[in-house]
Amino acid sequence: MSILVVGSVALDSVETPLGKVSEVLGGSATYFSAAASLYTKVNLVAVVGTDFPMGKIQFLIDRGIDTRGLQVVEGETFRWAGRYDYKTNTTETIDTKLNVFADFHPTLPEGYQKSDFVFLANIDPDLQYEVLRQVSRAKLTMLDTMDFWINNKIEALTRAISAVDMVTMNEGEARAFAKTESILTAAKWILNFGPKMVIIKRGEYGCAMVNEVGYFIAPACLLEQVKDPTGAGDTFAGGFMGYLDKVGELTPQAIKRAIIHGCTTASFTVEEFGVDRLRSLTPEDIAMRYREFYEFSHIEDW
Amino acid sequence: MSILVVGSVALDSVETPLGKVSEVLGGSATYFSAAASLYTKVNLVAVVGTDFPMGKIQFLIDRGIDTRGLQVVEGETFRWAGRYDYKTNTTETIDTKLNVFADFHPTLPEGYQKSDFVFLANIDPDLQYEVLRQVSRAKLTMLDTMDFWINNKIEALTRAISAVDMVTMNEGEARAFAKTESILTAAKWILNFGPKMVIIKRGEYGCAMVNEVGYFIAPACLLEQVKDPTGAGDTFAGGFMGYLDKVGELTPQAIKRAIIHGCTTASFTVEEFGVDRLRSLTPEDIAMRYREFYEFSHIEDW
Repeated sequence: MSILVVGSVALDSVETPLGKVSEVLGGSATYFSAAASLYTKVNLVAVVGTDFPMGKIQFLIDRGIDTRGLQVVEGETFRWAGRYDYKTNTTETIDTKLNVFADFHPTLPEGYQKSDFVFLANIDPDLQYEVLRQVSRAKLTMLDTMDFWINNKIEALTRAISAVDMVTMNEGEARAFAKTESILTAAKWILNFGPKMVIIKRGEYGCAMVNEVGYFIAPACLLEQVKDPTGAGDTFAGGFMGYLDKVGELTPQAIKRAIIHGCTTASFTVEEFGVDRLRSLTPEDIAMRYREFYEFSHIEDW
Repeated sequence: MSILVVGSVALDSVETPLGKVSEVLGGSATYFSAAASLYTKVNLVAVVGTDFPMGKIQFLIDRGIDTRGLQVVEGETFRWAGRYDYKTNTTETIDTKLNVFADFHPTLPEGYQKSDFVFLANIDPDLQYEVLRQVSRAKLTMLDTMDFWINNKIEALTRAISAVDMVTMNEGEARAFAKTESILTAAKWILNFGPKMVIIKRGEYGCAMVNEVGYFIAPACLLEQVKDPTGAGDTFAGGFMGYLDKVGELTPQAIKRAIIHGCTTASFTVEEFGVDRLRSLTPEDIAMRYREFYEFSHIEDW
């Protein structure tokens, strides 16, 4: 039982209406690992520069994450700076410095190929495909992507999508990929390429899972404060896959529960800047909020 | 068992990415009545001009709606023209002609005062308050409003809100009223004025009900086509109150089921232009889709 994640480890500078942080630990693989490691063993593949302060990920190592796949390469670490405007519900990228991430080439250390679950976070779809070819025995593979690849590498992205079991995108990405306004139609379009499931992330509204037989809608919980939305999607993926790997089954009910676990872990992430809330998060915290999700979305007698 | 609705009966001209209609039957009281009359008896209070083609509401009369409260006044009927842009998720009002609605003064025919449920659709909050003073024995009173009254008659609106049991607003209105981005904080702000429950309408994402003990989130169903979003909120209110009046109880479980009934009826409205889908809608259609809501949002074993 273990999960392989391939993605980014970054230094983020974030500004929201509730504050500002500079050069804090970020990156898709970081958020995913921080969440998934609360459930199961995680094998991390990413790259940082020689400037990266390794102390920042000590808490991940302490949780038993295998970081042999974290390459340290001469140069500077990937940096992202962004600003969120809650009134317009927009994210403005102030600066992106790919640095060593520009030449990232994922290599899987001994044993990583045997991971049961594989999450390909948002990276070049050619690299996602390359990883997929090495993990053919995985129980479940899932891919995330972003507008940039939809607009610039649609063929490579389509090839990678055709090779995974699950795809996760946010609403805007799904609409752009499928060229339709309906997220149901968009999800069905994605299913046509081969995946068995699509999860459409809907931000503060939760998410929708679509498969061949129907769909499942999971709400997000209502929060009085969202300090920093960064990493919510990758945290969702970490909670989702972490739960599935832990229970070791892929029944429809397990998948629904996993989706709620994803929403639950993501709801914590946004409470603090960066990964701060995930540092202190415990399985007990998750269990308590999971119960709250039940309470606020469940009807006893229909 | 009956519901009093006070609101508008109008002629709408609507353009969406999926088509265009001109001078079709619209108005908040119309949508509400069309939905609620599938559950219970409705007493309608509204106004139209002498130009109004009464044949347009024959289907409502056929459903047993009491239209003695529909005043016919010398002049022209309220007209609204609008355009929806799905990409930007915006509604552009092209033209509003209040006509006879500008001088609307609700008067309740004999017997209307005894209605068990009262829905005050979006009208001048002073008029809403005037109606409230005449229906003091109602089991449940609910008020809807819009940005215009929040921006221009906040004191009158606050007085009306203080006098009802429930308030329903969409997210933007709730945020504007409470001057906060969090809809949970906004709903709690509204509760401070006296109402026992607030329902925040979230369009394609469903709605959230907030009361003193917590909240309940109801999803909308995923649709491949939304032909015309007009009237979804008033239809929701009609399904919600119609169900509650029919079952005659206000337990927490009944309220949750009523919310799903509201979401269910609203999901039909948007499938066709104007009230077209509500004309042909049957209790059997509702029962079937209600079951679908259960399927796509329910987890058996937690």
